[in-house]
Amino acid sequence: MDPQDIYELLAAVKSGSLDPAEAAERLRKLPYEDLGYAKVDHHRALRRGFPEVVFGAGKAPEQTAGIVDRIAARGQNVLVTRTSADVLSLVSPSWPSARYHAEARSVTVTVRETPRLAGRVAVVSAGTSDLPVAEEAALTASFHGAEVERIYDVGVAGLHRLLDRTDSLRRARVVIVVAGMEGALPSVVGGLLEAPVIAVPTSVGYGASFQGLAALLAMLNSCASGIGVVNIDNGFGAGYLAVAILKSGSVET
Amino acid sequence: MDPQDIYELLAAVKSGSLDPAEAAERLRKLPYEDLGYAKVDHHRALRRGFPEVVFGAGKAPEQTAGIVDRIAARGQNVLVTRTSADVLSLVSPSWPSARYHAEARSVTVTVRETPRLAGRVAVVSAGTSDLPVAEEAALTASFHGAEVERIYDVGVAGLHRLLDRTDSLRRARVVIVVAGMEGALPSVVGGLLEAPVIAVPTSVGYGASFQGLAALLAMLNSCASGIGVVNIDNGFGAGYLAVAILKSGSVET
Amino acid sequence: MDPQDIYELLAAVKSGSLDPAEAAERLRKLPYEDLGYAKVDHHRALRRGFPEVVFGAGKAPEQTAGIVDRIAARGQNVLVTRTSADVLSLVSPSWPSARYHAEARSVTVTVRETPRLAGRVAVVSAGTSDLPVAEEAALTASFHGAEVERIYDVGVAGLHRLLDRTDSLRRARVVIVVAGMEGALPSVVGGLLEAPVIAVPTSVGYGASFQGLAALLAMLNSCASGIGVVNIDNGFGAGYLAVAILKSGSVET
Amino acid sequence: MDPQDIYELLAAVKSGSLDPAEAAERLRKLPYEDLGYAKVDHHRALRRGFPEVVFGAGKAPEQTAGIVDRIAARGQNVLVTRTSADVLSLVSPSWPSARYHAEARSVTVTVRETPRLAGRVAVVSAGTSDLPVAEEAALTASFHGAEVERIYDVGVAGLHRLLDRTDSLRRARVVIVVAGMEGALPSVVGGLLEAPVIAVPTSVGYGASFQGLAALLAMLNSCASGIGVVNIDNGFGAGYLAVAILKSGSVET
Amino acid sequence: MDPQDIYELLAAVKSGSLDPAEAAERLRKLPYEDLGYAKVDHHRALRRGFPEVVFGAGKAPEQTAGIVDRIAARGQNVLVTRTSADVLSLVSPSWPSARYHAEARSVTVTVRETPRLAGRVAVVSAGTSDLPVAEEAALTASFHGAEVERIYDVGVAGLHRLLDRTDSLRRARVVIVVAGMEGALPSVVGGLLEAPVIAVPTSVGYGASFQGLAALLAMLNSCASGIGVVNIDNGFGAGYLAVAILKSGSVET
Amino acid sequence: MDPQDIYELLAAVKSGSLDPAEAAERLRKLPYEDLGYAKVDHHRALRRGFPEVVFGAGKAPEQTAGIVDRIAARGQNVLVTRTSADVLSLVSPSWPSARYHAEARSVTVTVRETPRLAGRVAVVSAGTSDLPVAEEAALTASFHGAEVERIYDVGVAGLHRLLDRTDSLRRARVVIVVAGMEGALPSVVGGLLEAPVIAVPTSVGYGASFQGLAALLAMLNSCASGIGVVNIDNGFGAGYLAVAILKSGSVET
Amino acid sequence: MDPQDIYELLAAVKSGSLDPAEAAERLRKLPYEDLGYAKVDHHRALRRGFPEVVFGAGKAPEQTAGIVDRIAARGQNVLVTRTSADVLSLVSPSWPSARYHAEARSVTVTVRETPRLAGRVAVVSAGTSDLPVAEEAALTASFHGAEVERIYDVGVAGLHRLLDRTDSLRRARVVIVVAGMEGALPSVVGGLLEAPVIAVPTSVGYGASFQGLAALLAMLNSCASGIGVVNIDNGFGAGYLAVAILKSGSVET
Amino acid sequence: MDPQDIYELLAAVKSGSLDPAEAAERLRKLPYEDLGYAKVDHHRALRRGFPEVVFGAGKAPEQTAGIVDRIAARGQNVLVTRTSADVLSLVSPSWPSARYHAEARSVTVTVRETPRLAGRVAVVSAGTSDLPVAEEAALTASFHGAEVERIYDVGVAGLHRLLDRTDSLRRARVVIVVAGMEGALPSVVGGLLEAPVIAVPTSVGYGASFQGLAALLAMLNSCASGIGVVNIDNGFGAGYLAVAILKSGSVET
Repeated sequence: MDPQDIYELLAAVKSGSLDPAEAAERLRKLPYEDLGYAKVDHHRALRRGFPEVVFGAGKAPEQTAGIVDRIAARGQNVLVTRTSADVLSLVSPSWPSARYHAEARSVTVTVRETPRLAGRVAVVSAGTSDLPVAEEAALTASFHGAEVERIYDVGVAGLHRLLDRTDSLRRARVVIVVAGMEGALPSVVGGLLEAPVIAVPTSVGYGASFQGLAALLAMLNSCASGIGVVNIDNGFGAGYLAVAILKSGSVET
Repeated sequence: MDPQDIYELLAAVKSGSLDPAEAAERLRKLPYEDLGYAKVDHHRALRRGFPEVVFGAGKAPEQTAGIVDRIAARGQNVLVTRTSADVLSLVSPSWPSARYHAEARSVTVTVRETPRLAGRVAVVSAGTSDLPVAEEAALTASFHGAEVERIYDVGVAGLHRLLDRTDSLRRARVVIVVAGMEGALPSVVGGLLEAPVIAVPTSVGYGASFQGLAALLAMLNSCASGIGVVNIDNGFGAGYLAVAILKSGSVET
Repeated sequence: MDPQDIYELLAAVKSGSLDPAEAAERLRKLPYEDLGYAKVDHHRALRRGFPEVVFGAGKAPEQTAGIVDRIAARGQNVLVTRTSADVLSLVSPSWPSARYHAEARSVTVTVRETPRLAGRVAVVSAGTSDLPVAEEAALTASFHGAEVERIYDVGVAGLHRLLDRTDSLRRARVVIVVAGMEGALPSVVGGLLEAPVIAVPTSVGYGASFQGLAALLAMLNSCASGIGVVNIDNGFGAGYLAVAILKSGSVET
Repeated sequence: MDPQDIYELLAAVKSGSLDPAEAAERLRKLPYEDLGYAKVDHHRALRRGFPEVVFGAGKAPEQTAGIVDRIAARGQNVLVTRTSADVLSLVSPSWPSARYHAEARSVTVTVRETPRLAGRVAVVSAGTSDLPVAEEAALTASFHGAEVERIYDVGVAGLHRLLDRTDSLRRARVVIVVAGMEGALPSVVGGLLEAPVIAVPTSVGYGASFQGLAALLAMLNSCASGIGVVNIDNGFGAGYLAVAILKSGSVET
Repeated sequence: MDPQDIYELLAAVKSGSLDPAEAAERLRKLPYEDLGYAKVDHHRALRRGFPEVVFGAGKAPEQTAGIVDRIAARGQNVLVTRTSADVLSLVSPSWPSARYHAEARSVTVTVRETPRLAGRVAVVSAGTSDLPVAEEAALTASFHGAEVERIYDVGVAGLHRLLDRTDSLRRARVVIVVAGMEGALPSVVGGLLEAPVIAVPTSVGYGASFQGLAALLAMLNSCASGIGVVNIDNGFGAGYLAVAILKSGSVET
Repeated sequence: MDPQDIYELLAAVKSGSLDPAEAAERLRKLPYEDLGYAKVDHHRALRRGFPEVVFGAGKAPEQTAGIVDRIAARGQNVLVTRTSADVLSLVSPSWPSARYHAEARSVTVTVRETPRLAGRVAVVSAGTSDLPVAEEAALTASFHGAEVERIYDVGVAGLHRLLDRTDSLRRARVVIVVAGMEGALPSVVGGLLEAPVIAVPTSVGYGASFQGLAALLAMLNSCASGIGVVNIDNGFGAGYLAVAILKSGSVET
Repeated sequence: MDPQDIYELLAAVKSGSLDPAEAAERLRKLPYEDLGYAKVDHHRALRRGFPEVVFGAGKAPEQTAGIVDRIAARGQNVLVTRTSADVLSLVSPSWPSARYHAEARSVTVTVRETPRLAGRVAVVSAGTSDLPVAEEAALTASFHGAEVERIYDVGVAGLHRLLDRTDSLRRARVVIVVAGMEGALPSVVGGLLEAPVIAVPTSVGYGASFQGLAALLAMLNSCASGIGVVNIDNGFGAGYLAVAILKSGSVET
Repeated sequence: MDPQDIYELLAAVKSGSLDPAEAAERLRKLPYEDLGYAKVDHHRALRRGFPEVVFGAGKAPEQTAGIVDRIAARGQNVLVTRTSADVLSLVSPSWPSARYHAEARSVTVTVRETPRLAGRVAVVSAGTSDLPVAEEAALTASFHGAEVERIYDVGVAGLHRLLDRTDSLRRARVVIVVAGMEGALPSVVGGLLEAPVIAVPTSVGYGASFQGLAALLAMLNSCASGIGVVNIDNGFGAGYLAVAILKSGSVET
């Protein structure tokens, strides 16, 4: 029930074609959930132009392609994470703008221009094995309109590689740091910068890394301040949070 | 905003003293939260006569007593769990019906009669150290109107004690089973009965009991069916769930 | 040894063909286990008409089909959980009522009518990946005679979808809530309702979900009351507990 | 070694008073650490006006007071977290602006005006026991110059209380959500908002909360996007990250 | 209902004073639990002369003394574990045979002679901090009638001390090995001997010993065969199992 | 170096053909390890007739067959655990006594008669999925010369099945109890018997069974006394410990 | 920028072809990271002759071969760990010195002579399943120039095998001890020796070994002193640390 | 039994005063343990001059003082770790060289000169709360004869402080790195140096540090090579391992 519906109901009351008691009853029963839905829907409208995101893991390529098709047909850009090139071959006949991003294991379909966001996101990764997660974060951010700078393979065991990129890091408004094994990199980066740092533990490692638990705990216990942590391997979540931060800074308050 | 308010708004529209557009705007902005609140409030009214529960742990006796006072003054019975006799001495001057239940570590204040619920709750415990948790469950259930039968100290290492009480157990509509250490009792009880079983792990034990973790895992993995588990030492939660089940059975559907 | 056997023994005593001392010895040695078995057997007879349940995981289709065959031949309905369509093809030649429920990964064979239970069970699920567990719960409940209403894909990140279904939820006598990832849904549902809630954590998630541990812990620590938790992914257990609650409410006590 | 030093060295080379080889040696040995330190120092200068933070836990009041004194004497504001009122009585004679914030368990000393940051931070808490952590977050943010709105005691078991505050929430540029037990609140809040959410698990709970582990895991696995998690009970970390986000949005890029 | 009761019932049938049908009904209803109890009771009688054991932890000295008094008055020896000397002073006036065993933190009361068991139990401990647990095991075994040899402070870091005692070890029919920290001793002892080894992890250690978890896991994973493990710090359990093994060997089968 | 060697050396000294100093040197250098080895060897000789055991997991069938061949050629019986029928086909041409025990996943080769041990071992299992572990335990015990009685599928959820077998259980000198899921069975069995109980947790279960952890913890925390626990799924270890107990009882001491 | 560059810059200043201010600016901007890099590079030069190491896991054979090729072409020896024989066949055409070490799962390419290090490394392993990890450690050490002695299959359950090798052990300057299951071997070795011990837990085991966690915890809690632990299965790390210790002893200080 | 004893025994054989058979018997029975002991004893003699270490935790001051007294009376230096100043006051009357090291929580008694070891040990710590552990390590190393350099409060969040000390670090032959919270420092230090690094996790931190587990896991998973880890808070173990490494380098091999 949108404002127009309410207006018509009230007009009917005014014109006498609807009894106030009957109208009150209708309005009282009007479930707040619908109002809630309306708000959310309106709210989503504000986001127009930003992509819808599909989590591809555990879905058959055909299923994923079907979902992509429905979203793109509504005129919305789509990002599919944790998927394979098979989805591309199913989707690209209808949507020639479809692309497969191999390192990010993601498919994108662009059906309208995405507004660009102010401010840059730096994506920093510790080792080459962290690349898929880092690329998922980078793609998520850029596909939502952020400018992204990749600073890869700068793990703490070779500190000079990181220090070489300090200036790039300082130009970013948000820094995503992706690391497995001991997960020390966000602490080092966080100590160098003022910008908010989003730490992404990865399941890279073996033995006592316990599939990313070691990195996760390290990041949560960072002695540096200004660090928020997302789930293990959650590149998408980091990219999305970075975008939320950029957008938050652009909002009139 | 309750129905009366809505009616008056509509009457104002009908009378012409309020413009439909203005009324639509007011209604549209009418936060669903308020409607929601109203529903919940109405909903609470249905529960009238059942006690309000206060979690006493971590509250100073004076704080707790103050809360008890406010609730009782509204004409509602109160149950305070995880508390001490100190609260009683603060509360009893104003509320002579106040009682301290030492084994359940709880205080009750009765200011109105609680409707009795149909069906009996059996509370079964494995060892004497589980008593405080079992009593918290039993008191919670009986103070909400349930008839409670206590079947204590019937741990699996002395099976005959439990089997002696099978008939009592079979008369219950819900059975709460409280056990620490290896937490085996709910499986045994669940295998003997058709009634729903609420399993309460306790932190009783040492070493590899890991403060109740062993019992908790055992109960979650029970090979018997018809068992729901609550948090470690959560006697109140078990008693409350038992009451919810009894009430659920009494509802016209 | 059933009552008839005992009667005949006593008659032999009376007639003098059996010495009282000898009879006493036989009776004394009569293992309580047999009596116990008899009771249980009699007890099972009360359940007549309810299905027998077979856990299919780890059994070869031929094994499962053989078990199904034996049970159905005794005139009992059968529910096989965690199985595959292969079992159906082996079973259906003999039992044309056999059905494969793909989403619940279950096979049913109906050889007699199941008595219907009073009261409805609502099965609520957070996300589409939780579907197999939710369907296992729903099928378990309905195959045991319960009326089931499915309320799916109403996770807490889109609260309005859940609130839209509040009325449906309030009509249920028991609510099963199935959720993976952070396992927050039972708390939200439990806060909206008076009915008992059965929470089912699922292994849906990745990284720090630790195969359902995160959801399990969240559900055990729910700040809402009236919630019982079953094992991770244990849709059957939840459905069975719901049925036990419905039956408990129908018992004359 | 700052630029002036380098210039003088080069001038000495030019004037012939220093041999190029000798100068090269000095420059080669010039430790990058010093340059690094200089950069960092300059960097700190940019932060001028923001408080220095002291972690009070495990420090004797006299130690803490001594540290506070040194910082305040440098003309910097000080925030001491996890401390007691004892520190106040030691500090206030010299620094009359010192205040003890009982709920945040913190002391502040203000010796200069803090620049105000643009944008509001909302601090949301689930239960009254989460208050100390929430207040630590709120105080950290406000003492760094942020406008803070507190939205307390809106746990998911009473959803209407949260929904009542949706408008307030939507006005915030960053939302900090503090919750113990099952840690479900950030997911619900994250589903209602576009703003970045900082989730703070607390050690509030018992049994299978495992001192905040349940809440921590729930928050890391949130099905809502745009959420970053900090350590258990780390109100300061959340407040600081919120400030970093606000500042990040104000930076010219 | 004991054999005599059954005989009288049958005699009444034979004499005609009781109808066979009525007698059959009484017998049928005769709860197996009572028979079960009788069996167990008879069974306990076989154990006559062996002590009853009271777990003293968490009991007030007065409570413990009361229990001890009741058992001793029945003519049974008593062993109280995890208790203090306070219990002795309460018990010794009535029972002069009472003794406090400081290192085993146990009290014994001997009111009758305990039959001696064939075969020796060796109790081996790794370090001096493991002494209380080792002594609890040794006392439990000797108070049940076993001959006990103590071989203490022979941890694996000083292997020669253990090897010096190999002959003593080989004379034992059961060997209890008590060790904290890395829990390696049972593996070494198990590799030297044919006798069954009972391994007792202790909570001795710090850091990554996690209160005995490290030792527990090590013992469960022992590469030596013939080792059974009991709970962390469970000296009593080890001593009791050793006694069960000695008794098992003495049984005519 | 055995006693004969030492005698000959000394005789050479006596006869003058060896200088005392030279002999002393030889003896002094005589590594205790060799003496140790000799002892162990002698010790092994005592075991003559008992099988050598090969852990088959992770070995190629050819490797395993080669090892079996070498042992059997020395005239010793062999037991291969965790292996497959492939090994049988490689071994049986040379050793026609070779057998594959499918449920125990083991191969045996008998080249000499095994002395029979006095006393019976009962192997009790909770569910049909525990069978492979139970059979590994049973085969290990019987192949070492023990008489074994299998009591299978008597889990605690159907207590009467266990109670039916109480007499059989009481005839055993050692009882092995194999159970997965909640691991409650050893507690129940331990409460019924005086004999030592060896508890074997299995990895049977799902979700919060955590691959046998739940059962393991339950068994370690058993409220029944006289229970020793072995590693998860370690049927061999249980069988071997049972044999060690039987042999221990037969030793002259 | 190396010393030569700095010299030339200064010479340009001296000759007047470069203005001191301009030179100062260049030097000031000279990022310490570059200096850092130069230092490290120079530093690496000191290591000349030691191999570069490639972690092969998760890399395609072609990728690995490409990396190997680039390093060897620079004239450096290469060690590839966790790789397969496939890499050999790709690499050996260009580099005939390439070897595949099957047990260490490693490939080496030697293009120059490695300087030999003073002092021997002993590599001790508990069981045959620990071989791959032990061999990785041994190969790492020997390929870096260390003399390596292998002492395999000397687990604590057969202590005499270890004691037989005590003399060999005492000749080593560093001892690497590789063990899975209960991880007891380093404690025993550490108790026999003065030399530093590097303990390597392996994931060998099952059940409660939890993929090497049991061994890891045991090693960290060793009652022997002088033991450092590396990650589970990290043979390379142990070999490298041994080399670092040998080199450390050779350094002029 | 030392060589002289053996010689005399053989001489007695030669002289005919001892029968070869009798001598063989004596020699055969000669327990290898005694030989082992002798070796170890001799071995200890080699260490003469190095201190004996007493672990003070859990010992009464009087107990500790008694042990110290006995060792010092044998002419050996003593180091007591984890102790209090109370021990000093008991020990110093007899041993005026006794000192209490407050930050290391240790007492030392020097009764003879300790030989100095070649090479320096650097002890690096992350934060001021890590000081007690760092000091325990430093004191352990220096009291065993090592030259120690302390580099404190150089955590990764302020990287420049660490980089400033690079030259000091590079002069060390062994580096001990002590860190709590996220435990990142050893990785950074390890990346800067060639020397072996001993990493000591501390229990400093809160929440998800889980008493040092986070730091421990981080250190075990370090991406830098050449790192060995000791137990949480085990400063002594680190100092002792450093000494073992220094001594190892000095050994003639």
